[in-house]
Amino acid sequence: MNESVKHYCGLFGIHGHRDAARLTYLGLYSLQHRGEEAAGIVTFDGKTMNAHKAMGLVSEVFDEKTLHQLPGRMAIGHTRYSTTGSSTLKNSQPLVVSYAKGSLAVAHNGNLVNAFELRQQLEANGSIFQTTVDSEIILHLLARSTNKTFQEDLSECLPLLQGAFSLLFMTERELIGARDPNGFRPLCIGRLNNAYVLASETCALDIIGAKFLREVNPGEVVVIGPDGMRSLSPFKPKQRSHCLFEHVYFSRPDSYVFGESVQSVRIKLGRQLAREYPVQADLVMPIPDSGNFAALGYSQESKIPYAIGMIRNHYVGRTFIQPAQEIRDLKVRVKFNPIKEIIKGQRLVIVDDSIVRGTTTRARVKSLREAGAKEIHLRVSCPPTKFACFYGIDFPKRKELIANTKTLDEIRQFIGVDSLGYLSLEGLMKAVKRPDDYCTACWSGQYPIPFGDEGDKFALEKHAGQGSENC
Amino acid sequence: MNESVKHYCGLFGIHGHRDAARLTYLGLYSLQHRGEEAAGIVTFDGKTMNAHKAMGLVSEVFDEKTLHQLPGRMAIGHTRYSTTGSSTLKNSQPLVVSYAKGSLAVAHNGNLVNAFELRQQLEANGSIFQTTVDSEIILHLLARSTNKTFQEDLSECLPLLQGAFSLLFMTERELIGARDPNGFRPLCIGRLNNAYVLASETCALDIIGAKFLREVNPGEVVVIGPDGMRSLSPFKPKQRSHCLFEHVYFSRPDSYVFGESVQSVRIKLGRQLAREYPVQADLVMPIPDSGNFAALGYSQESKIPYAIGMIRNHYVGRTFIQPAQEIRDLKVRVKFNPIKEIIKGQRLVIVDDSIVRGTTTRARVKSLREAGAKEIHLRVSCPPTKFACFYGIDFPKRKELIANTKTLDEIRQFIGVDSLGYLSLEGLMKAVKRPDDYCTACWSGQYPIPFGDEGDKFALEKHAGQGSENC
Amino acid sequence: MNESVKHYCGLFGIHGHRDAARLTYLGLYSLQHRGEEAAGIVTFDGKTMNAHKAMGLVSEVFDEKTLHQLPGRMAIGHTRYSTTGSSTLKNSQPLVVSYAKGSLAVAHNGNLVNAFELRQQLEANGSIFQTTVDSEIILHLLARSTNKTFQEDLSECLPLLQGAFSLLFMTERELIGARDPNGFRPLCIGRLNNAYVLASETCALDIIGAKFLREVNPGEVVVIGPDGMRSLSPFKPKQRSHCLFEHVYFSRPDSYVFGESVQSVRIKLGRQLAREYPVQADLVMPIPDSGNFAALGYSQESKIPYAIGMIRNHYVGRTFIQPAQEIRDLKVRVKFNPIKEIIKGQRLVIVDDSIVRGTTTRARVKSLREAGAKEIHLRVSCPPTKFACFYGIDFPKRKELIANTKTLDEIRQFIGVDSLGYLSLEGLMKAVKRPDDYCTACWSGQYPIPFGDEGDKFALEKHAGQGSENC
Amino acid sequence: MNESVKHYCGLFGIHGHRDAARLTYLGLYSLQHRGEEAAGIVTFDGKTMNAHKAMGLVSEVFDEKTLHQLPGRMAIGHTRYSTTGSSTLKNSQPLVVSYAKGSLAVAHNGNLVNAFELRQQLEANGSIFQTTVDSEIILHLLARSTNKTFQEDLSECLPLLQGAFSLLFMTERELIGARDPNGFRPLCIGRLNNAYVLASETCALDIIGAKFLREVNPGEVVVIGPDGMRSLSPFKPKQRSHCLFEHVYFSRPDSYVFGESVQSVRIKLGRQLAREYPVQADLVMPIPDSGNFAALGYSQESKIPYAIGMIRNHYVGRTFIQPAQEIRDLKVRVKFNPIKEIIKGQRLVIVDDSIVRGTTTRARVKSLREAGAKEIHLRVSCPPTKFACFYGIDFPKRKELIANTKTLDEIRQFIGVDSLGYLSLEGLMKAVKRPDDYCTACWSGQYPIPFGDEGDKFALEKHAGQGSENC
Repeated sequence: MNESVKHYCGLFGIHGHRDAARLTYLGLYSLQHRGEEAAGIVTFDGKTMNAHKAMGLVSEVFDEKTLHQLPGRMAIGHTRYSTTGSSTLKNSQPLVVSYAKGSLAVAHNGNLVNAFELRQQLEANGSIFQTTVDSEIILHLLARSTNKTFQEDLSECLPLLQGAFSLLFMTERELIGARDPNGFRPLCIGRLNNAYVLASETCALDIIGAKFLREVNPGEVVVIGPDGMRSLSPFKPKQRSHCLFEHVYFSRPDSYVFGESVQSVRIKLGRQLAREYPVQADLVMPIPDSGNFAALGYSQESKIPYAIGMIRNHYVGRTFIQPAQEIRDLKVRVKFNPIKEIIKGQRLVIVDDSIVRGTTTRARVKSLREAGAKEIHLRVSCPPTKFACFYGIDFPKRKELIANTKTLDEIRQFIGVDSLGYLSLEGLMKAVKRPDDYCTACWSGQYPIPFGDEGDKFALEKHAGQGSENC
Repeated sequence: MNESVKHYCGLFGIHGHRDAARLTYLGLYSLQHRGEEAAGIVTFDGKTMNAHKAMGLVSEVFDEKTLHQLPGRMAIGHTRYSTTGSSTLKNSQPLVVSYAKGSLAVAHNGNLVNAFELRQQLEANGSIFQTTVDSEIILHLLARSTNKTFQEDLSECLPLLQGAFSLLFMTERELIGARDPNGFRPLCIGRLNNAYVLASETCALDIIGAKFLREVNPGEVVVIGPDGMRSLSPFKPKQRSHCLFEHVYFSRPDSYVFGESVQSVRIKLGRQLAREYPVQADLVMPIPDSGNFAALGYSQESKIPYAIGMIRNHYVGRTFIQPAQEIRDLKVRVKFNPIKEIIKGQRLVIVDDSIVRGTTTRARVKSLREAGAKEIHLRVSCPPTKFACFYGIDFPKRKELIANTKTLDEIRQFIGVDSLGYLSLEGLMKAVKRPDDYCTACWSGQYPIPFGDEGDKFALEKHAGQGSENC
Repeated sequence: MNESVKHYCGLFGIHGHRDAARLTYLGLYSLQHRGEEAAGIVTFDGKTMNAHKAMGLVSEVFDEKTLHQLPGRMAIGHTRYSTTGSSTLKNSQPLVVSYAKGSLAVAHNGNLVNAFELRQQLEANGSIFQTTVDSEIILHLLARSTNKTFQEDLSECLPLLQGAFSLLFMTERELIGARDPNGFRPLCIGRLNNAYVLASETCALDIIGAKFLREVNPGEVVVIGPDGMRSLSPFKPKQRSHCLFEHVYFSRPDSYVFGESVQSVRIKLGRQLAREYPVQADLVMPIPDSGNFAALGYSQESKIPYAIGMIRNHYVGRTFIQPAQEIRDLKVRVKFNPIKEIIKGQRLVIVDDSIVRGTTTRARVKSLREAGAKEIHLRVSCPPTKFACFYGIDFPKRKELIANTKTLDEIRQFIGVDSLGYLSLEGLMKAVKRPDDYCTACWSGQYPIPFGDEGDKFALEKHAGQGSENC
Repeated sequence: MNESVKHYCGLFGIHGHRDAARLTYLGLYSLQHRGEEAAGIVTFDGKTMNAHKAMGLVSEVFDEKTLHQLPGRMAIGHTRYSTTGSSTLKNSQPLVVSYAKGSLAVAHNGNLVNAFELRQQLEANGSIFQTTVDSEIILHLLARSTNKTFQEDLSECLPLLQGAFSLLFMTERELIGARDPNGFRPLCIGRLNNAYVLASETCALDIIGAKFLREVNPGEVVVIGPDGMRSLSPFKPKQRSHCLFEHVYFSRPDSYVFGESVQSVRIKLGRQLAREYPVQADLVMPIPDSGNFAALGYSQESKIPYAIGMIRNHYVGRTFIQPAQEIRDLKVRVKFNPIKEIIKGQRLVIVDDSIVRGTTTRARVKSLREAGAKEIHLRVSCPPTKFACFYGIDFPKRKELIANTKTLDEIRQFIGVDSLGYLSLEGLMKAVKRPDDYCTACWSGQYPIPFGDEGDKFALEKHAGQGSENC
């Protein structure tokens, strides 16, 4: 994946295990790809909610000492991406508050399209906001509900939310998972001995050895307490609209989301690409590691041998020092080094998952040329990305998306390849079992949830701009 | 001052200076003694409130980089003491929120006695709390006011607060200072060219070269905006009850608070001590630095020569490593080294500001004995400290206060001195111009503001215990 | 590669470029796999040698500020592995000294077998040692030489060294590279415009866009000064003995060392493995990433499809928190997650580069079984590792090497696979062009350089133990 | 003391105590004033020398963890000042080396005047230097000695050193203290139960509760081993020349050095000042804390009341952020705040220990004027400082010393005081018991040890400049 599609958030919760914080830490570890810039865990020890949150990778945020300060048999955790800077620590999750019914923690993955309206209403009624994350809005709504039980509050408030939300709540008794009726973002349920686990992806169940039970259904709220798990359905049923980008890029290939194995979807994407854009070539190579499975699929379908022609430097961290101006293009080389002996004189099919701005792809192609590639045929395992996402993904601005400013042939020339093939939307749909259950807005522009005045695109994008701080 | 009376908070605000953050940093530097465990500054740059807060000393929390991230011509800052631990970062001030009227920042010095009740009412009406500081209660009250102007909101809400509060607010237009009608905590007004300054003590005006105009009056609210300063009086007048401990120990000797020069009050305390407890002796020595001025006063009145007989090690930081068990008493020696050549064979008058638990004093006396003192006469510049403070000071629990568990002679024996003299309450009152304007609750038990059921002392102290997290 | 074969050191030097420090930083970045625990750069700015060294990854040791403090057009850098702890900072390289001929810096990759004897002789003659690295011995020898020129000193001293050494020297005029006559460790020469570059592997030339000229020959000393590069041959010619483990595991697959492309050697190893140990199976899978190329080779030769069946978590850092005892085996799972959908019901060929203790391999096999693998056939791309290395690799102690304590069938049972095939030594040799030019001691026990009394194995290993601090 | 006379080094050693590292830590704590920029401790545990050294204050360099890594019953420690920067970590002491006779650690306070010559000779004979501290020269000399015992080596080598040196050595058996025959720098011996202690000042004995036995004599070497302490005299006797600046400024007032109580010398200096420069005034005030005792003496002699008229902010750390240009003079105010109520309308005698550049004094005087002082009479407790020190003190360059560029009246005018009195050299000598045993070079220019060509002052100062890195 290229330079600028940001992951959003990862969720993990566990109820009924004496090692709750440590298991949450491990779960977040495996969800690190969903948010690299802040992490937090909140536990409940029977009396107090204990929280530790900080900017940084999960491995940087937690150590033995901080884990020891998080006792309890119940925990929720969160990884997030955000614009960097210490000032945004306050936006890290889970959020914990005290209110009339006691203590309450919440973690959110997604984006509310009516966040602005809800916040304005709440402020008009005297609410104060200390962060800019959607979770705080949800907490205010719940605190203003006056039902007898928290479940009733949930049933009253969650339907007020519009947009994408997979949510974890922790009260002083229960762990709760909720998923919006469209089912934009994934959320799954696991079991580890007597403990229940909720997580964004199944890879977080694998890491702790938990058994995958099932996904939380779109529109379902699962309440896990001392007496086990029960299910609520506070929403009106809606047409599902899972995020197809989860399969194309976001989710880990070893996860199972939306009823499918991610890697197997990616292999199918690669096979379909080979059918749509066949070419005479000597080798099929992925952009490692995001293109690995699609490249394998292309190779299997086309019978062109699979090769590992670029080495990715996994030591490259977030603090990499910029090379001097004159050695600027080296940045790409720092991350990926082409292997001359493999590439020289060969006709290559290169498979990547998407193109955003195009500049990184261009630099890579240039370095493959310098390594002696005879022909370079780029295959992209999804259609051109043209539209903003209002449901939880942070793309660059529309005018920075190369597919909005150039024709296909201009893109091909800009990137410098001999041929370019984007998977068709139809081809993309074929790779999943129930294509109608997916959102394709970033490629098709067909938004499953409206967001106000469609004529005023600018307002929408401004809103999205503000929303990009949310998670 | 002994081991366990905790300072509380320091406030600094400035309006109308392009170096607002840097001057606030300097002001907080000079107020460091009022809170060593966290510091924060919030500026307003015409568009955004910018905040930086962290655990640690002012010099640790801020550097050039963080100051550069705090642009604007208006700022408020805060130093606080709190129980340590990263989890309490959230309790550091100033608090900044967004609400119906825009952005608002607040910093608080004092303690509300009706915090618990106010919070319960607010929660019952749907408020959520992310911290345990009184400031958040005040913000909720203001946000729920529906007047046309912020000033009207203030006039409506501030009278709901009971207890001790010196407050700074920063809106998007104005810097505001408020002081409770009893005037428990100090707050003064200064001028630096065209800028106005508000600060807990005048030493913070001196450090930036600002001119001291006057103190904010008890019950006064000063509003400093583009058009200058104006004054509001939203409270009913009350009998003043300034904290006399500010003069005895808390405030810096070079400050001017409650209409008096702190050092001159302390010299008077020493003189009065000499009158109340004269003794034949060779030298008068302070416990440095807290007893310096009272010892000077004692020396002046008694004509016994003043000596510097203990050297204080100013490198002793908060992270001092405990000596091994066998060398335990050395801890006192690390901080204060008696000078044998001065002490040997002498009859000493030692002057300190107060005795809390007594263990530190005892260890010091022991080391003076080892240095060869012939006689040791301890003089304390206030009466025995026996009662909890509900207005912003964190004393140890009542049963840990030595004056509550031992008679005077038992204390003398425990500490190991030849004679012991505590200043009388009457003597203490003589040192200030208007004795009736002071609170003496920690010595007399006469609380100027009631706090619920007087019969239920336990509940009160529990409340105070919870309140001790406030500032 | 398994848990305990430690990389040793990476070298990078450049002469004649105004961005010397920054390019050295980049070069070390690409050599990070050769030593993850300390890094250092020394530059010469025409007057002074400037050094910065610290424990940690290259990305942690250097930042913009430290690079700015390293001016000059000439630099050498070093990455090393060592036992951790601040006390070993002193052992980090390059070492810089002042001596009769001026300033001198040195960096070393390898291990001297006569280090102990040389050091004893030097101490007997009055030398003092501040570190335990071989480089300091070399500096003492040079400083005690009394020739007119540094080159003559080198010609006198280098032949005194026995063992493995690729060396970089920086004087106040020249950058010098030297390689022992056996050629144990790699060292290559590159060109970037007018600058010369020396580096352990060609991947460090690629990252800065330098052109690969040739390798430094075994026994060659190259002197790069203002007038260009010239070559010295101070050693008697010897039979070459390149480290074959560089091809099997150490070097990066995109490097070219000892006259061969590393990845192509690895593919040949895989192909040969397939010929030696064919099996009926459904999928060939590497242990990522070390087994990637050998697995590709096995797949190509056997026609069994290549699969990516385990996902490696690249976020796993050095500070990973141990899971609690009960979840111990999860450590393996944290790093590698098997993909059930791929593995379930399949007969797998798993390809890895080597087995050291066997415990990690065993845990991985267990997790593949749990994922549903029907059969597991392990193929190892080198012979059983049985003997200590005295030329720069830090294997575990001999008795910890599983191949020394168990028969092949016992290993197979211990690891839990259906079949096990180690590549034969003959097969290994076939993968390189000039098999006689390689050292195979760790597999064959045939040591190209003797190290004292062969009967006293214990002394030798003790010596190796001490030597393991060297680099 | 003013802005730029740098302390040099503090030494502490202990033999025969199981808490050796911790006691050394405490000792260094009390010697912190002798060097604030780096600290180190080396212990010997019967097998290994364990070292921990870092830049920073003693409290920053050590914590429980590092102390635990320093086992053993014998230790030496060192605090030093040096120009800052990580590159000088290598210059921190104690230095530890391995050589023919085993391990050896050394710590040095002072400055060798023949360091340059010795180093050149050693380099000519093949020595390499990794630091620029004198200690390394001493180690090389010792390592090149070929006597049977270390004591014989010492007796051979120490007489080769010229200049000021108090030295601690730790071998694998013994703790050794040595003092140059002139006795420039202090060194004392203490006893704690069965353990022996060596320290720069007696305040380091006090802090650990050790008993002061006596000072190491000039020219004496004390060797403390398992069998107790014995004394060597390897030097030819010389006229003593103790550093009188130790009494005036460097040593702690609670220490006893050169046979005198430091505070009592300072009081005598103040009394003598009052006799030499009497004046009609209302108050005598010290520049805190360096002028405290001299001011007391002045007050006692003159009968003018002693006052504390400036408050020193002890929170001012080394990382203080510079105020913006327009508020530059505030830097002085940050550190010292005059108390207006005391100063206003008063005729003040201000007592300080010395004037170096004069700019800080001038700024302080200015702030006293602003506080309303009617007259200011400055009294300095030593003569004008005019000459460089080659024996361990780092004064600014001669032309930066105000006494070298201005007449007394010009200084008075520059500083802005009504009268100025420097103590006479004769008056200074009267304050100590044996005036002939002191070095007065910085005031008189009479150097007790020659340093080459007296005509070439520039060379000398250049040498001193280089020497200033030494300790």
